[in-house]
Amino acid sequence: MRIASYMTAEGPSFGLVVRDGVVDLRRRLGGRYASLRAVLEADALAELRAHAGAAPDFALADLAWLPALPDPQKILCVGLNYRSHVGEGGPREVPEFPRLFSRFADTLVAQGQAMVRPRVSTQFDYEGELAVVIGKPGRHISRERAMEHIAGYTCFNDGSLRDYQKHMITAGKNFWRSGPLGPWVVTADEIPDPTVLTLETRLNGQRVQHAGTGELIYSIPTLIEYASRITPLSPGDILATGTPEGVALHRKPPLWLKAGDVVEVEISGIGVLRNPVVDEDAAP
Amino acid sequence: MRIASYMTAEGPSFGLVVRDGVVDLRRRLGGRYASLRAVLEADALAELRAHAGAAPDFALADLAWLPALPDPQKILCVGLNYRSHVGEGGPREVPEFPRLFSRFADTLVAQGQAMVRPRVSTQFDYEGELAVVIGKPGRHISRERAMEHIAGYTCFNDGSLRDYQKHMITAGKNFWRSGPLGPWVVTADEIPDPTVLTLETRLNGQRVQHAGTGELIYSIPTLIEYASRITPLSPGDILATGTPEGVALHRKPPLWLKAGDVVEVEISGIGVLRNPVVDEDAAP
Repeated sequence: MRIASYMTAEGPSFGLVVRDGVVDLRRRLGGRYASLRAVLEADALAELRAHAGAAPDFALADLAWLPALPDPQKILCVGLNYRSHVGEGGPREVPEFPRLFSRFADTLVAQGQAMVRPRVSTQFDYEGELAVVIGKPGRHISRERAMEHIAGYTCFNDGSLRDYQKHMITAGKNFWRSGPLGPWVVTADEIPDPTVLTLETRLNGQRVQHAGTGELIYSIPTLIEYASRITPLSPGDILATGTPEGVALHRKPPLWLKAGDVVEVEISGIGVLRNPVVDEDAAP
Repeated sequence: MRIASYMTAEGPSFGLVVRDGVVDLRRRLGGRYASLRAVLEADALAELRAHAGAAPDFALADLAWLPALPDPQKILCVGLNYRSHVGEGGPREVPEFPRLFSRFADTLVAQGQAMVRPRVSTQFDYEGELAVVIGKPGRHISRERAMEHIAGYTCFNDGSLRDYQKHMITAGKNFWRSGPLGPWVVTADEIPDPTVLTLETRLNGQRVQHAGTGELIYSIPTLIEYASRITPLSPGDILATGTPEGVALHRKPPLWLKAGDVVEVEISGIGVLRNPVVDEDAAP
C-alpha cells in the first residue's frame, strides 16, 4: 500500500494511493483514525487494505499534500552514513558509532510544497535519503527484531544549512520547512529488502546524487538497535538513514539551492519526492 | 506565581503553589485549560492570579509531580555557555556561536521522580541549569524584544551520558528520563532580571556546581534571537541556558551518578529541584 496524507475541507486526512487518485480513509473508516499515525498506533494497517479496490475520492493532481507522516513525535536522522559522502570534501574517518541527530516536526515539507531557504543563510543544501517509518513501539530493540518495528518507507530530503550546521548540527538541520518527506509511505510488505533500492537526487532535472541503499555504513536494523537504546521508538517516528555523495557543499563552486530551483528525490519502489525552493520572505 | 504540574485522579493538572500546598487550577478554571501549556497558548496567565488567595486543594508533600512543563513541543539547550565549564577539563575555545541542541520531551523527569541511569552507560552526569519557559510565540525575535516572549523560569538538570555524547551530542542528551525539570515554573514578573540569580548543584548534599546566571556567554535574549532565526518558538517551549563548571566528567576520578544518589539543582528565586537516581532496570 501507498498511503498519502493531505488536507481536505474537513481537516487533515490520509488515504490509499490508487493509480492517479486517492481513496480517502479517514472518511471510509468512519473517522476512527485521525491520521496515519493513529492507524499505526492502533496497529491497524491491515484494516486499510480492504479499501484498495475502491474508486478514488480525490485526484492526486488536486491533493493538498501533507508530509508523508505529518506529526511524528520523533524524527531521528543519521549523519555520514554512506562511505561516498564521508569521503567527499576531503579525508574524514568513518564514524565509530552512528551519528544521530534530530529534527523538529515543523521542519517537514510535503510533496510539491516549497522548501524554504531561510533569511539568514544562503548555504542551503539538499540530501536525498531513504526514511523509515516506525510501526511497532519499542525500546532496546535488537537488530534481529528491528525489521518487525518498521511500518514502511518514504523519501526524505534532509535539507541542511551548512553554515549553521558548523555552529552545531542541530542548528543546521532544524530550519523551518527545510526537510521534505514524501510523497507517501509505502508499507513494508512491498519493500521486503530495503537494501536493494536505488536512490537518486536531481536538481533542476540534473542527477546530483545516485546510490544504492545497500551502501549504508550502519544498516537500518543497526540504527534501530542503537537509537532504541537511547530513546523509546513510537508508531509514526521517522528514522532517516543518511545521504550519499553529491551534496551541494562539496561541489566547486557549491550548488546551493536558491529560489526557483526544483529538487527531486527518487527511490525505486517508493516514488519521486519533488519540491521547489522559495525564499523565506516569499514563503506562504 | 509558582505554577506546578502534577497528576490527579482525574488526569494531569496544574495549580498555584501557595505555602505548602497547591491551588488546583484545572478544576477552578472549569477545565478551560488542560495544562499550563494551554494557559500559555491562550495568553491567559493573568486569569490564574485571581486564585492566589484560595485554600490549597492538595499538600505539596502529596503531589504526584509532573515535569514543570510536561509537554513542550521543543526543548532547546545550549552547550558550553559558561566560561568556567568551557575551561574545565583542558583548554577549549569559547564557541563563536551558541551551540544549540535539542531534547525529546520524554527525557524530562519531574520533581522527586528518579533520573534513570541507562542500561548501556555508566557515564551519567548532572548539569544544573536555568531554564526559560517561552510564553509568547515568535520567529526572528530580536534580542531587544526577547524578554517579552518569556513566561517564566525553572530549574533544569541536563542529565548527560558522556560516552554517548562523544558519538553525537543528540545521543548523549536524549536518554529516556535523564533530565529533571522543575520543581515548578516561576512567572517572569517575579524574576525581572534573570542574570542575578545564583545556581547551585548538590550531589548527595555536597555542592558540586555554583555560579551566577550573569556568567552566561550567550545571554538569554541572544539565545532567543539566535534560536528563533532557525525555528519558530511556541508557548511552553523550553530553552535551557547551559551549565557552569563542576560536572562529574571533569573530576578525578569522575563523579558519575549511580543508583541511590540524590541530585539537587537550586536557583535563587525559583526553588530546589531534587531527584534520586535509579538504574534503568529498576525504574518504574
